[in-house]
Amino acid sequence: MSSTEIVNQTTSSEALNSPFVQELVRQIRAQDSYGFYRSWSDELILKPYIVSKQAKRQISVEGDVEPATKGRIMSFYRAIAAQIEQKTGLLSQVVIDLSHEGFGWVLVFSGRLLLVTRTLRDAQRFGFDSLEKLADEGNKLTQKGIELAEKYTEVAKL
Amino acid sequence: MSSTEIVNQTTSSEALNSPFVQELVRQIRAQDSYGFYRSWSDELILKPYIVSKQAKRQISVEGDVEPATKGRIMSFYRAIAAQIEQKTGLLSQVVIDLSHEGFGWVLVFSGRLLLVTRTLRDAQRFGFDSLEKLADEGNKLTQKGIELAEKYTEVAKL
Repeated sequence: MSSTEIVNQTTSSEALNSPFVQELVRQIRAQDSYGFYRSWSDELILKPYIVSKQAKRQISVEGDVEPATKGRIMSFYRAIAAQIEQKTGLLSQVVIDLSHEGFGWVLVFSGRLLLVTRTLRDAQRFGFDSLEKLADEGNKLTQKGIELAEKYTEVAKL
Repeated sequence: MSSTEIVNQTTSSEALNSPFVQELVRQIRAQDSYGFYRSWSDELILKPYIVSKQAKRQISVEGDVEPATKGRIMSFYRAIAAQIEQKTGLLSQVVIDLSHEGFGWVLVFSGRLLLVTRTLRDAQRFGFDSLEKLADEGNKLTQKGIELAEKYTEVAKL
């Protein structure tokens, strides 16, 4: 095993155990009404979120976004909403507006305040290079949302 | 013609000429790339927005919201967004998240500020009792949006 691989593994395990990724796992398991994932490891459950650049190119952006992909996007942003909720006590909602061509918006909000605003493009290819990238993106959006909620609490409570 | 009918007609003509309803007509005509409505009167274009309680009951809420209905919802909220834009100078976006069962959200926002937040229920039955009701609802939401934009301009400019 090369030293690079060891480094990657360490970082990957840190990412896996980060609060955001653990929240994402909880969100996915919470949707699992039939216990389909019960015996699956966290890594296995998260696997569909890791899509290499090469793999992305092979996913067609023609036609509708598949329900499974839409579900993955939803869980990702619900995990952000849940993290913001835990830190600020503000209830928040996730709204996804996806056109049939994979373009659209994701919004997370509390009261009248938008905590996350993202445009989606080629949502059929939603995914991250690595677990670290997934964790970084989730943490970044969560932090930004918390900052906004703390700065504009009045608007978030409307 | 009874006096009641005359009264209704007067109010209806006021509603038709109200700035909100005229903006709605502009929004619908702007979507009309093929000139299908070119020779139609404003009243005729607005007719699908007027759905009596009885007519609503006859619209099934099973299955998807029809594209035409979704288009009508979009134009209604775009007209609100356009009116707010004209009064405040803030660019705003309309986002509609409709589940396949006719439930969902409509959000109109500028920057990080939500100007309109509405939950939709039985969106298949979207419509108003009368042109006056349509004008009232549109004006009410526009006014509320403008008040918010004026009070929280900083958030709307983020």
